[in-house]
Amino acid sequence: MNYKELYNNILKKKSFLCIGLDTNPALIPDFLSESEYPLFEFNKAIIDATSAFAVAYKPNLAFYEALGYRGWMQLEMTVEYIRSKDPSLFIIADAKRGDIGNTAERYAVAFFERMDCDAVTLAPYMGKDSVAPFLKFSGHWAVVLALTSNPSAEDFETLVTLEESSFFLNGGAQEQTGLSSKQVAPLFRRVIETAMSWGTQDNTMFVVGATRPEKLAEIREYCPNHFFLVPGVGAQGGSLKEVVKYGMNSSCGLLVNISRDIIFAWKKEKSGFSEQNYAQAAAVAAEAVALEMKNYL
Amino acid sequence: MNYKELYNNILKKKSFLCIGLDTNPALIPDFLSESEYPLFEFNKAIIDATSAFAVAYKPNLAFYEALGYRGWMQLEMTVEYIRSKDPSLFIIADAKRGDIGNTAERYAVAFFERMDCDAVTLAPYMGKDSVAPFLKFSGHWAVVLALTSNPSAEDFETLVTLEESSFFLNGGAQEQTGLSSKQVAPLFRRVIETAMSWGTQDNTMFVVGATRPEKLAEIREYCPNHFFLVPGVGAQGGSLKEVVKYGMNSSCGLLVNISRDIIFAWKKEKSGFSEQNYAQAAAVAAEAVALEMKNYL
Repeated sequence: MNYKELYNNILKKKSFLCIGLDTNPALIPDFLSESEYPLFEFNKAIIDATSAFAVAYKPNLAFYEALGYRGWMQLEMTVEYIRSKDPSLFIIADAKRGDIGNTAERYAVAFFERMDCDAVTLAPYMGKDSVAPFLKFSGHWAVVLALTSNPSAEDFETLVTLEESSFFLNGGAQEQTGLSSKQVAPLFRRVIETAMSWGTQDNTMFVVGATRPEKLAEIREYCPNHFFLVPGVGAQGGSLKEVVKYGMNSSCGLLVNISRDIIFAWKKEKSGFSEQNYAQAAAVAAEAVALEMKNYL
Repeated sequence: MNYKELYNNILKKKSFLCIGLDTNPALIPDFLSESEYPLFEFNKAIIDATSAFAVAYKPNLAFYEALGYRGWMQLEMTVEYIRSKDPSLFIIADAKRGDIGNTAERYAVAFFERMDCDAVTLAPYMGKDSVAPFLKFSGHWAVVLALTSNPSAEDFETLVTLEESSFFLNGGAQEQTGLSSKQVAPLFRRVIETAMSWGTQDNTMFVVGATRPEKLAEIREYCPNHFFLVPGVGAQGGSLKEVVKYGMNSSCGLLVNISRDIIFAWKKEKSGFSEQNYAQAAAVAAEAVALEMKNYL
Protein backbone atom coordinates (compact mmCIF):
# COMPACT_ATOMS: atom_id res chain seq x y z
CA MET A 1 0.00 0.00 0.00
CA ASN A 2 1.34 3.46 -0.82
CA TYR A 3 0.48 6.88 0.63
CA LYS A 4 -2.33 7.55 -1.83
CA GLU A 5 -3.96 4.16 -1.30
CA LEU A 6 -3.85 4.61 2.46
CA TYR A 7 -5.31 8.11 2.11
CA ASN A 8 -8.06 6.79 -0.15
CA ASN A 9 -8.95 4.17 2.45
CA ILE A 10 -9.14 6.95 5.04
CA LEU A 11 -11.52 8.93 2.83
CA LYS A 12 -13.64 5.85 2.17
CA LYS A 13 -13.93 4.90 5.83
CA LYS A 14 -14.03 8.56 6.95
CA SER A 15 -11.66 7.55 9.72
CA PHE A 16 -7.95 7.65 10.41
CA LEU A 17 -8.27 5.44 13.47
CA CYS A 18 -5.71 2.74 14.19
CA ILE A 19 -6.79 0.28 16.88
CA GLY A 20 -3.98 -1.02 19.05
CA LEU A 21 -4.31 -4.73 19.81
CA ASP A 22 -2.43 -4.57 23.13
CA THR A 23 -4.17 -7.78 24.07
CA ASN A 24 -3.07 -8.25 27.64
CA PRO A 25 -4.19 -11.73 28.76
CA ALA A 26 -4.68 -10.42 32.30
CA LEU A 27 -7.28 -7.94 31.07
CA ILE A 28 -9.37 -9.98 28.64
CA PRO A 29 -12.70 -11.43 29.85
CA ASP A 30 -12.37 -14.43 32.15
CA PHE A 31 -14.66 -16.61 30.08
CA LEU A 32 -12.16 -16.51 27.19
CA SER A 33 -9.54 -18.33 29.21
CA GLU A 34 -11.30 -21.60 28.38
CA SER A 35 -10.61 -21.07 24.68
CA GLU A 36 -7.60 -22.71 23.09
CA TYR A 37 -6.56 -19.35 21.62
CA PRO A 38 -7.86 -16.69 24.01
CA LEU A 39 -5.92 -13.74 22.54
CA PHE A 40 -7.07 -14.60 19.04
CA GLU A 41 -10.69 -15.11 20.12
CA PHE A 42 -10.63 -11.73 21.83
CA ASN A 43 -9.03 -10.00 18.83
CA LYS A 44 -11.40 -11.65 16.36
CA ALA A 45 -14.48 -10.31 18.13
CA ILE A 46 -12.88 -6.87 18.49
CA ILE A 47 -11.99 -6.79 14.78
CA ASP A 48 -15.50 -7.91 13.76
CA ALA A 49 -17.03 -5.20 15.92
CA THR A 50 -14.70 -2.33 14.98
CA SER A 51 -13.39 -2.81 11.43
CA ALA A 52 -16.03 -0.49 9.98
CA PHE A 53 -14.60 2.37 12.03
CA ALA A 54 -10.86 1.80 11.64
CA VAL A 55 -8.37 1.94 8.78
CA ALA A 56 -5.59 0.20 10.67
CA TYR A 57 -4.79 -2.29 13.41
CA LYS A 58 -1.60 -2.41 15.40
CA PRO A 59 -0.86 -5.60 17.36
CA ASN A 60 1.67 -4.89 20.12
CA LEU A 61 4.06 -7.82 19.99
CA ALA A 62 5.06 -7.85 23.64
CA PHE A 63 1.66 -9.14 24.71
CA TYR A 64 1.94 -12.10 22.34
CA GLU A 65 5.60 -12.89 22.97
CA ALA A 66 4.98 -13.07 26.72
CA LEU A 67 3.03 -16.26 25.95
CA GLY A 68 5.89 -17.76 23.95
CA TYR A 69 5.34 -19.57 20.68
CA ARG A 70 1.64 -19.98 21.38
CA GLY A 71 1.39 -16.21 21.65
CA TRP A 72 3.27 -15.78 18.40
CA MET A 73 0.87 -18.27 16.80
CA GLN A 74 -2.10 -16.17 17.92
CA LEU A 75 -0.40 -13.07 16.53
CA GLU A 76 -0.13 -14.77 13.15
CA MET A 77 -3.77 -15.86 13.33
CA THR A 78 -4.77 -12.28 14.16
CA VAL A 79 -2.89 -10.76 11.23
CA GLU A 80 -4.40 -13.35 8.90
CA TYR A 81 -7.86 -12.64 10.23
CA ILE A 82 -7.54 -8.86 9.76
CA ARG A 83 -6.37 -9.40 6.19
CA SER A 84 -9.25 -11.76 5.39
CA LYS A 85 -11.79 -9.45 7.03
CA ASP A 86 -10.92 -6.45 4.87
CA PRO A 87 -7.88 -6.46 2.57
CA SER A 88 -7.71 -2.66 2.70
CA LEU A 89 -6.92 -2.60 6.43
CA PHE A 90 -3.40 -1.39 7.17
CA ILE A 91 -1.61 -3.71 9.59
CA ILE A 92 1.24 -2.40 11.72
CA ALA A 93 3.40 -4.84 13.68
CA ASP A 94 4.26 -2.78 16.74
CA ALA A 95 7.54 -4.55 17.26
CA LYS A 96 9.95 -1.63 17.78
CA ARG A 97 12.74 -3.68 16.27
CA GLY A 98 16.12 -2.13 15.67
CA ASP A 99 18.90 -4.26 14.28
CA ILE A 100 21.13 -4.12 11.26
CA GLY A 101 21.93 -5.61 7.88
CA ASN A 102 21.00 -9.24 7.43
CA THR A 103 19.34 -9.31 10.88
CA ALA A 104 17.05 -6.42 9.98
CA GLU A 105 16.30 -8.13 6.70
CA ARG A 106 15.18 -11.27 8.62
CA TYR A 107 12.80 -9.15 10.71
CA ALA A 108 11.39 -7.71 7.49
CA VAL A 109 10.83 -11.25 6.23
CA ALA A 110 9.09 -12.13 9.52
CA PHE A 111 6.64 -9.25 9.30
CA PHE A 112 6.22 -8.66 5.56
CA GLU A 113 6.51 -12.15 4.09
CA ARG A 114 5.88 -14.75 6.77
CA MET A 115 3.09 -12.52 8.10
CA ASP A 116 1.22 -10.15 5.83
CA CYS A 117 1.79 -6.91 7.75
CA ASP A 118 2.01 -3.60 5.91
CA ALA A 119 4.31 -1.89 8.36
CA VAL A 120 6.57 -2.39 11.34
CA THR A 121 7.66 0.07 14.05
CA LEU A 122 11.43 0.57 14.28
CA ALA A 123 13.85 2.14 16.76
CA PRO A 124 16.30 4.35 14.85
CA TYR A 125 19.20 4.29 17.35
CA MET A 126 21.58 2.26 15.13
CA GLY A 127 20.96 4.47 12.09
CA LYS A 128 20.28 3.73 8.45
CA ASP A 129 21.48 0.11 8.67
CA SER A 130 18.50 -0.63 10.91
CA VAL A 131 15.83 0.97 8.69
CA ALA A 132 16.96 0.67 5.05
CA PRO A 133 16.55 -3.15 4.82
CA PHE A 134 12.81 -2.72 5.46
CA LEU A 135 12.47 -0.15 2.66
CA LYS A 136 13.52 -2.71 0.08
CA PHE A 137 10.18 -4.48 0.48
CA SER A 138 7.99 -2.69 -2.03
CA GLY A 139 4.59 -1.55 -0.76
CA HIS A 140 5.65 -1.91 2.86
CA TRP A 141 6.46 0.67 5.50
CA ALA A 142 9.02 1.49 8.14
CA VAL A 143 7.39 3.36 11.04
CA VAL A 144 10.31 5.10 12.71
CA LEU A 145 10.19 6.22 16.34
CA ALA A 146 10.73 9.98 16.48
CA LEU A 147 9.15 11.79 19.44
CA THR A 148 7.30 9.30 21.61
CA SER A 149 4.54 9.94 24.13
CA ASN A 150 6.25 8.56 27.25
CA PRO A 151 7.76 10.78 29.96
CA SER A 152 11.34 9.55 29.50
CA ALA A 153 11.30 10.59 25.82
CA GLU A 154 13.20 13.50 27.35
CA ASP A 155 16.15 11.31 28.33
CA PHE A 156 17.51 11.20 24.78
CA GLU A 157 14.92 12.09 22.12
CA THR A 158 14.84 15.78 22.98
CA LEU A 159 18.58 16.20 23.62
CA VAL A 160 20.04 19.07 21.65
CA THR A 161 22.45 17.73 19.05
CA LEU A 162 25.10 19.42 16.96
CA GLU A 163 26.26 18.30 13.58
CA GLU A 164 29.58 16.73 14.50
CA SER A 165 31.36 18.29 11.54
CA SER A 166 30.40 21.81 12.53
CA PHE A 167 31.32 21.08 16.12
CA PHE A 168 34.85 19.91 15.43
CA LEU A 169 35.57 22.23 12.54
CA ASN A 170 34.94 25.20 14.74
CA GLY A 171 37.13 23.96 17.58
CA GLY A 172 34.40 23.02 19.98
CA ALA A 173 31.36 24.74 21.37
CA GLN A 174 33.37 27.66 22.69
CA GLU A 175 34.04 28.88 19.20
CA GLN A 176 30.62 28.35 17.70
CA THR A 177 28.83 31.34 16.32
CA GLY A 178 25.62 31.70 14.39
CA LEU A 179 24.65 28.03 14.19
CA SER A 180 21.63 27.37 12.00
CA SER A 181 18.68 25.26 13.09
CA LYS A 182 19.98 22.51 10.83
CA GLN A 183 23.22 22.47 12.81
CA VAL A 184 21.52 22.61 16.22
CA ALA A 185 18.47 20.37 16.55
CA PRO A 186 16.86 17.99 19.01
CA LEU A 187 17.69 14.34 18.37
CA PHE A 188 14.14 13.53 17.22
CA ARG A 189 14.40 16.20 14.50
CA ARG A 190 17.74 14.75 13.41
CA VAL A 191 16.07 11.32 13.22
CA ILE A 192 13.16 12.61 11.14
CA GLU A 193 15.24 14.66 8.73
CA THR A 194 17.81 11.91 8.29
CA ALA A 195 15.26 9.11 7.88
CA MET A 196 13.33 11.21 5.33
CA SER A 197 16.39 10.92 3.10
CA TRP A 198 16.42 7.11 3.30
CA GLY A 199 12.92 6.49 1.98
CA THR A 200 9.87 8.27 0.66
CA GLN A 201 6.44 9.29 1.91
CA ASP A 202 5.23 6.00 0.40
CA ASN A 203 7.29 3.78 2.68
CA THR A 204 8.25 5.79 5.77
CA MET A 205 6.15 7.24 8.56
CA PHE A 206 7.09 8.61 11.97
CA VAL A 207 5.82 8.00 15.49
CA VAL A 208 4.97 11.33 17.10
CA GLY A 209 3.16 11.23 20.43
CA ALA A 210 -0.13 13.02 21.03
CA THR A 211 1.01 14.18 24.46
CA ARG A 212 3.16 16.92 22.87
CA PRO A 213 0.74 18.55 20.36
CA GLU A 214 2.75 21.78 20.06
CA LYS A 215 5.68 19.68 18.82
CA LEU A 216 3.46 18.23 16.09
CA ALA A 217 3.13 21.68 14.53
CA GLU A 218 6.87 22.22 14.72
CA ILE A 219 7.57 18.83 13.10
CA ARG A 220 5.03 19.48 10.32
CA GLU A 221 7.16 22.45 9.24
CA TYR A 222 10.10 20.28 8.22
CA CYS A 223 8.15 17.09 7.54
CA PRO A 224 4.99 18.28 5.76
CA ASN A 225 4.18 15.26 3.62
CA HIS A 226 4.74 12.11 5.65
CA PHE A 227 2.22 10.12 7.65
CA PHE A 228 2.58 10.30 11.42
CA LEU A 229 1.49 7.42 13.62
CA VAL A 230 0.21 9.15 16.73
CA PRO A 231 -0.16 7.20 19.99
CA GLY A 232 -1.14 8.72 23.30
CA VAL A 233 -4.70 9.87 22.61
CA GLY A 234 -7.03 8.73 25.39
CA ALA A 235 -5.44 6.74 28.23
CA GLN A 236 -2.19 8.74 28.03
CA GLY A 237 -3.99 12.10 28.00
CA GLY A 238 -3.59 13.37 24.42
CA SER A 239 -6.47 15.14 22.67
CA LEU A 240 -7.64 14.16 19.19
CA LYS A 241 -8.71 17.73 18.45
CA GLU A 242 -5.25 19.08 19.19
CA VAL A 243 -3.53 16.32 17.23
CA VAL A 244 -5.63 17.23 14.18
CA LYS A 245 -5.12 20.97 14.67
CA TYR A 246 -1.34 20.69 14.80
CA GLY A 247 -0.58 17.49 12.91
CA MET A 248 -2.95 17.08 9.95
CA ASN A 249 -1.76 17.90 6.44
CA SER A 250 -3.75 18.37 3.24
CA SER A 251 -4.02 14.61 2.67
CA CYS A 252 -4.65 13.68 6.31
CA GLY A 253 -1.12 12.46 7.14
CA LEU A 254 -2.31 11.01 10.44
CA LEU A 255 -3.01 7.58 11.84
CA VAL A 256 -4.20 8.05 15.40
CA ASN A 257 -3.76 4.96 17.52
CA ILE A 258 -6.03 4.12 20.43
CA SER A 259 -5.60 0.87 22.30
CA ARG A 260 -6.99 0.37 25.80
CA ASP A 261 -9.80 2.96 25.51
CA ILE A 262 -11.28 0.88 22.71
CA ILE A 263 -10.38 -2.76 23.24
CA PHE A 264 -11.00 -2.65 26.99
CA ALA A 265 -13.82 -0.06 26.81
CA TRP A 266 -16.20 -2.23 28.84
CA LYS A 267 -13.89 -1.90 31.85
CA LYS A 268 -14.33 1.85 32.06
CA GLU A 269 -16.27 3.18 34.99
CA LYS A 270 -19.95 3.55 34.07
CA SER A 271 -19.35 2.03 30.62
CA GLY A 272 -22.70 0.33 30.91
CA PHE A 273 -21.28 -2.85 29.39
CA SER A 274 -20.66 -6.24 30.95
CA GLU A 275 -17.66 -8.42 30.27
CA GLN A 276 -19.85 -10.51 27.94
CA ASN A 277 -20.38 -7.45 25.74
CA TYR A 278 -16.75 -6.43 25.44
CA ALA A 279 -16.86 -6.34 21.63
CA GLN A 280 -19.99 -4.21 21.57
CA ALA A 281 -18.36 -1.80 24.02
CA ALA A 282 -15.35 -1.58 21.70
CA ALA A 283 -17.61 -0.88 18.73
CA VAL A 284 -19.34 1.98 20.54
CA ALA A 285 -16.01 3.47 21.57
CA ALA A 286 -14.49 3.13 18.09
CA GLU A 287 -17.58 4.56 16.41
CA ALA A 288 -17.48 7.62 18.67
CA VAL A 289 -13.87 8.29 17.68
CA ALA A 290 -14.61 7.72 14.00
CA LEU A 291 -17.55 10.16 14.15
CA GLU A 292 -15.27 12.84 15.56
CA MET A 293 -12.67 12.05 12.90
CA LYS A 294 -15.24 12.39 10.12
CA ASN A 295 -15.69 16.05 11.07
CA TYR A 296 -12.00 16.70 10.66
CA LEU A 297 -11.64 15.16 7.20
CA MET B 1 23.33 -14.19 37.90
CA ASN B 2 25.19 -11.13 39.20
CA TYR B 3 28.50 -9.60 38.09
CA LYS B 4 30.60 -11.70 40.45
CA GLU B 5 28.96 -14.97 39.45
CA LEU B 6 29.46 -14.19 35.79
CA TYR B 7 33.09 -13.29 36.45
CA ASN B 8 33.61 -16.52 38.39
CA ASN B 9 32.22 -18.50 35.46
CA ILE B 10 34.67 -16.70 33.19
CA LEU B 11 37.56 -17.64 35.49
CA LYS B 12 36.38 -21.22 35.70
CA LYS B 13 36.01 -21.62 31.92
CA LYS B 14 39.03 -19.38 31.22
CA SER B 15 36.94 -17.80 28.49
CA PHE B 16 34.79 -14.73 28.01
CA LEU B 17 33.41 -15.95 24.71
CA CYS B 18 29.77 -15.46 23.83
CA ILE B 19 28.61 -17.50 20.84
CA GLY B 20 25.99 -15.81 18.70
CA LEU B 21 23.31 -18.20 17.50
CA ASP B 22 22.46 -16.26 14.35
CA THR B 23 21.04 -19.46 12.96
CA ASN B 24 20.20 -18.47 9.41
CA PRO B 25 18.18 -21.32 7.86
CA ALA B 26 19.72 -20.52 4.45
CA LEU B 27 23.21 -21.22 5.81
CA ILE B 28 22.74 -24.39 7.86
CA PRO B 29 23.68 -27.74 6.33
CA ASP B 30 21.25 -29.03 3.73
CA PHE B 31 20.79 -32.39 5.39
CA LEU B 32 19.19 -30.69 8.42
CA SER B 33 16.27 -29.49 6.35
CA GLU B 34 14.71 -32.93 6.71
CA SER B 35 14.49 -32.47 10.47
CA GLU B 36 11.26 -31.27 12.05
CA TYR B 37 13.20 -28.58 13.94
CA PRO B 38 16.24 -27.76 11.81
CA LEU B 39 17.31 -24.61 13.69
CA PHE B 40 17.13 -26.42 16.99
CA GLU B 41 19.00 -29.46 15.68
CA PHE B 42 21.73 -27.21 14.36
CA ASN B 43 21.96 -25.23 17.62
CA LYS B 44 21.97 -28.38 19.76
CA ALA B 45 25.00 -29.82 17.98
CA ILE B 46 26.77 -26.44 18.10
CA ILE B 47 26.09 -26.12 21.84
CA ASP B 48 27.26 -29.68 22.53
CA ALA B 49 30.48 -29.01 20.62
CA THR B 50 31.27 -25.55 21.99
CA SER B 51 29.89 -25.20 25.53
CA ALA B 52 33.28 -26.06 27.08
CA PHE B 53 34.76 -22.96 25.43
CA ALA B 54 32.02 -20.40 25.97
CA VAL B 55 30.44 -18.66 28.96
CA ALA B 56 27.48 -17.29 27.06
CA TYR B 57 25.18 -17.86 24.09
CA LYS B 58 23.26 -15.18 22.28
CA PRO B 59 20.40 -16.29 20.04
CA ASN B 60 19.56 -13.56 17.52
CA LEU B 61 15.79 -13.43 17.45
CA ALA B 62 15.35 -12.25 13.87
CA PHE B 63 16.46 -15.60 12.49
CA TYR B 64 13.82 -17.43 14.53
CA GLU B 65 11.00 -14.93 14.00
CA ALA B 66 11.45 -15.11 10.23
CA LEU B 67 10.06 -18.66 10.54
CA GLY B 68 7.01 -17.52 12.51
CA TYR B 69 5.73 -19.41 15.52
CA ARG B 70 7.72 -22.51 14.58
CA GLY B 71 10.87 -20.41 14.70
CA TRP B 72 9.87 -19.03 18.09
CA MET B 73 9.28 -22.60 19.25
CA GLN B 74 12.82 -23.56 18.23
CA LEU B 75 14.16 -20.51 20.03
CA GLU B 76 12.45 -21.70 23.22
CA MET B 77 13.82 -25.22 22.71
CA THR B 78 17.31 -23.77 22.23
CA VAL B 79 17.21 -21.69 25.42
CA GLU B 80 15.93 -24.70 27.36
CA TYR B 81 18.69 -26.86 25.93
CA ILE B 82 21.45 -24.39 26.83
CA ARG B 83 20.11 -24.19 30.38
CA SER B 84 19.96 -27.99 30.75
CA LYS B 85 23.42 -28.42 29.24
CA ASP B 86 25.15 -26.18 31.77
CA PRO B 87 23.17 -24.05 34.21
CA SER B 88 26.07 -21.59 34.52
CA LEU B 89 25.84 -20.52 30.86
CA PHE B 90 24.72 -16.92 30.46
CA ILE B 91 21.91 -16.62 27.90
CA ILE B 92 21.34 -13.33 26.09
CA ALA B 93 18.21 -12.88 24.00
CA ASP B 94 19.48 -10.61 21.25
CA ALA B 95 16.11 -9.02 20.71
CA LYS B 96 16.98 -5.30 20.66
CA ARG B 97 13.57 -4.49 22.06
CA GLY B 98 12.71 -0.96 23.01
CA ASP B 99 9.26 -0.19 24.31
CA ILE B 100 7.83 1.33 27.45
CA GLY B 101 5.99 0.68 30.69
CA ASN B 102 3.66 -2.29 30.67
CA THR B 103 4.79 -3.26 27.16
CA ALA B 104 8.42 -3.43 28.25
CA GLU B 105 7.34 -5.43 31.27
CA ARG B 106 5.67 -7.99 28.97
CA TYR B 107 8.89 -8.35 26.98
CA ALA B 108 10.72 -8.97 30.26
CA VAL B 109 8.19 -11.69 31.08
CA ALA B 110 8.72 -13.22 27.63
CA PHE B 111 12.49 -13.45 28.03
CA PHE B 112 13.01 -13.84 31.78
CA GLU B 113 9.98 -15.88 32.87
CA ARG B 114 8.46 -17.64 29.90
CA MET B 115 12.00 -18.37 28.67
CA ASP B 116 14.89 -18.67 31.09
CA CYS B 117 17.21 -16.06 29.55
CA ASP B 118 19.59 -14.10 31.77
CA ALA B 119 19.68 -10.98 29.66
CA VAL B 120 18.07 -9.15 26.77
CA THR B 121 19.51 -6.51 24.42
CA LEU B 122 17.61 -3.20 24.45
CA ALA B 123 17.51 -0.07 22.29
CA PRO B 124 17.66 2.99 24.58
CA TYR B 125 16.00 5.52 22.26
CA MET B 126 12.82 5.94 24.36
CA GLY B 127 14.78 6.44 27.59
CA LYS B 128 14.40 5.06 31.08
CA ASP B 129 10.82 3.86 30.52
CA SER B 130 12.18 1.31 28.05
CA VAL B 131 14.93 -0.10 30.29
CA ALA B 132 13.81 0.21 33.92
CA PRO B 133 11.03 -2.43 33.70
CA PHE B 134 13.69 -5.07 32.92
CA LEU B 135 15.77 -4.10 35.97
CA LYS B 136 12.95 -5.11 38.29
CA PHE B 137 13.62 -8.77 37.50
CA SER B 138 16.23 -9.71 40.08
CA GLY B 139 19.26 -11.57 38.77
CA HIS B 140 18.53 -10.54 35.17
CA TRP B 141 20.23 -8.05 32.91
CA ALA B 142 19.48 -5.23 30.52
CA VAL B 143 22.10 -5.09 27.76
CA VAL B 144 21.80 -1.54 26.45
CA LEU B 145 22.96 -0.54 22.97
CA ALA B 146 25.61 2.16 23.28
CA LEU B 147 28.16 2.32 20.46
CA THR B 148 27.44 -0.39 17.94
CA SER B 149 29.77 -1.92 15.35
CA ASN B 150 27.81 -1.05 12.20
CA PRO B 151 28.80 1.78 9.83
CA SER B 152 25.62 3.82 10.36
CA ALA B 153 26.25 4.01 14.10
CA GLU B 154 27.48 7.43 13.02
CA ASP B 155 24.02 8.56 11.98
CA PHE B 156 22.91 9.18 15.56
CA GLU B 157 25.05 7.36 18.17
CA THR B 158 28.05 9.62 17.69
CA LEU B 159 26.14 12.89 17.32
CA VAL B 160 27.41 15.58 19.68
CA THR B 161 24.74 16.38 22.23
CA LEU B 162 24.34 19.27 24.64
CA GLU B 163 22.58 19.17 27.94
CA GLU B 164 19.36 20.93 27.03
CA SER B 165 19.33 22.98 30.23
CA SER B 166 22.75 24.47 29.57
CA PHE B 167 21.76 25.13 25.97
CA PHE B 168 18.66 27.12 26.71
CA LEU B 169 19.88 28.82 29.87
CA ASN B 170 22.70 30.36 27.93
CA GLY B 171 20.49 31.61 25.11
CA GLY B 172 21.54 29.13 22.47
CA ALA B 173 24.81 27.97 21.03
CA GLN B 174 25.92 31.45 20.10
CA GLU B 175 26.34 32.34 23.74
CA GLN B 176 27.94 29.16 24.99
CA THR B 177 31.30 29.41 26.63
CA GLY B 178 33.47 26.90 28.43
CA LEU B 179 31.21 23.87 28.22
CA SER B 180 32.45 20.86 30.18
CA SER B 181 32.65 17.34 28.76
CA LYS B 182 29.58 16.44 30.77
CA GLN B 183 27.67 19.17 28.97
CA VAL B 184 29.02 18.27 25.52
CA ALA B 185 29.11 14.54 24.79
CA PRO B 186 28.35 12.10 22.00
CA LEU B 187 24.93 10.49 22.27
CA PHE B 188 26.40 7.07 23.13
CA ARG B 189 28.20 8.57 26.16
CA ARG B 190 24.95 10.24 27.24
CA VAL B 191 23.23 6.83 26.96
CA ILE B 192 25.91 5.06 29.01
CA GLU B 193 26.14 7.68 31.75
CA THR B 194 22.37 8.01 32.02
CA ALA B 195 21.69 4.26 31.97
CA MET B 196 24.39 3.70 34.63
CA SER B 197 22.17 5.70 36.98
CA TRP B 198 19.14 3.45 36.36
CA GLY B 199 20.70 0.17 37.41
CA THR B 200 23.90 -1.34 38.75
CA GLN B 201 26.86 -3.30 37.42
CA ASP B 202 24.91 -6.40 38.48
CA ASN B 203 22.03 -5.84 36.08
CA THR B 204 23.21 -3.53 33.31
CA MET B 205 25.78 -4.00 30.57
CA PHE B 206 26.48 -2.05 27.39
CA VAL B 207 26.96 -3.04 23.78
CA VAL B 208 30.22 -1.53 22.50
CA GLY B 209 31.42 -2.65 19.09
CA ALA B 210 34.88 -4.11 18.51
CA THR B 211 35.27 -2.11 15.31
CA ARG B 212 36.06 1.03 17.31
CA PRO B 213 38.67 -0.17 19.85
CA GLU B 214 39.98 3.32 20.61
CA LYS B 215 36.49 4.25 21.76
CA LEU B 216 36.53 1.32 24.19
CA ALA B 217 39.38 2.95 26.12
CA GLU B 218 37.54 6.25 26.18
CA ILE B 219 34.34 4.60 27.45
CA ARG B 220 36.25 2.67 30.13
CA GLU B 221 37.24 6.03 31.66
CA TYR B 222 33.68 6.92 32.59
CA CYS B 223 32.32 3.39 32.81
CA PRO B 224 35.07 1.38 34.54
CA ASN B 225 33.06 -1.31 36.28
CA HIS B 226 30.35 -2.53 33.92
CA PHE B 227 30.41 -5.49 31.59
CA PHE B 228 30.53 -4.67 27.89
CA LEU B 229 29.05 -7.02 25.33
CA VAL B 230 31.37 -6.65 22.36
CA PRO B 231 30.22 -7.73 18.89
CA GLY B 232 32.21 -7.22 15.72
CA VAL B 233 35.25 -9.44 16.34
CA GLY B 234 35.90 -11.65 13.33
CA ALA B 235 33.51 -11.27 10.40
CA GLN B 236 33.09 -7.52 10.99
CA GLY B 237 36.84 -6.93 11.30
CA GLY B 238 37.43 -6.22 15.00
CA SER B 239 40.48 -7.66 16.77
CA LEU B 240 40.25 -9.58 20.04
CA LYS B 241 43.67 -8.35 21.12
CA GLU B 242 42.67 -4.73 20.73
CA VAL B 243 39.34 -5.24 22.46
CA VAL B 244 41.17 -6.70 25.46
CA LYS B 245 43.83 -3.99 25.42
CA TYR B 246 41.33 -1.16 25.48
CA GLY B 247 38.24 -2.68 27.05
CA MET B 248 39.18 -5.15 29.80
CA ASN B 249 38.91 -4.10 33.43
CA SER B 250 40.31 -5.77 36.56
CA SER B 251 37.47 -8.29 36.67
CA CYS B 252 37.32 -8.94 32.94
CA GLY B 253 34.28 -6.79 32.17
CA LEU B 254 34.03 -8.23 28.67
CA LEU B 255 31.82 -10.66 26.86
CA VAL B 256 33.10 -10.94 23.31
CA ASN B 257 30.52 -12.21 20.88
CA ILE B 258 31.39 -14.19 17.78
CA SER B 259 28.66 -15.60 15.59
CA ARG B 260 29.31 -16.59 11.98
CA ASP B 261 33.04 -17.30 12.40
CA ILE B 262 32.15 -20.05 14.86
CA ILE B 263 28.76 -21.46 13.98
CA PHE B 264 29.43 -21.45 10.24
CA ALA B 265 33.18 -22.16 10.55
CA TRP B 266 33.01 -25.10 8.16
CA LYS B 267 32.03 -22.74 5.34
CA LYS B 268 35.27 -20.82 5.53
CA GLU B 269 37.66 -21.22 2.65
CA LYS B 270 40.15 -24.01 3.40
CA SER B 271 38.41 -24.82 6.69
CA GLY B 272 39.10 -28.48 6.02
CA PHE B 273 35.65 -29.45 7.26
CA SER B 274 32.70 -30.81 5.37
CA GLU B 275 29.10 -29.81 5.97
CA GLN B 276 28.65 -33.06 7.91
CA ASN B 277 31.26 -31.92 10.42
CA TYR B 278 29.86 -28.45 11.04
CA ALA B 279 29.77 -28.93 14.82
CA GLN B 280 33.37 -30.12 14.94
CA ALA B 281 34.42 -27.10 12.88
CA ALA B 282 32.63 -24.85 15.37
CA ALA B 283 34.40 -26.56 18.26
CA VAL B 284 37.81 -26.00 16.70
CA ALA B 285 37.02 -22.34 16.02
CA ALA B 286 35.63 -21.76 19.52
CA GLU B 287 38.56 -23.51 21.18
CA ALA B 288 41.04 -21.34 19.29
CA VAL B 289 39.31 -18.19 20.53
CA ALA B 290 39.13 -19.56 24.09
CA LEU B 291 42.85 -20.38 24.06
CA GLU B 292 43.65 -16.81 23.07
CA MET B 293 41.29 -15.52 25.77
CA LYS B 294 42.97 -17.68 28.42
CA ASN B 295 46.19 -15.73 27.88
CA TYR B 296 44.44 -12.47 28.56
CA LEU B 297 42.79 -13.49 31.83
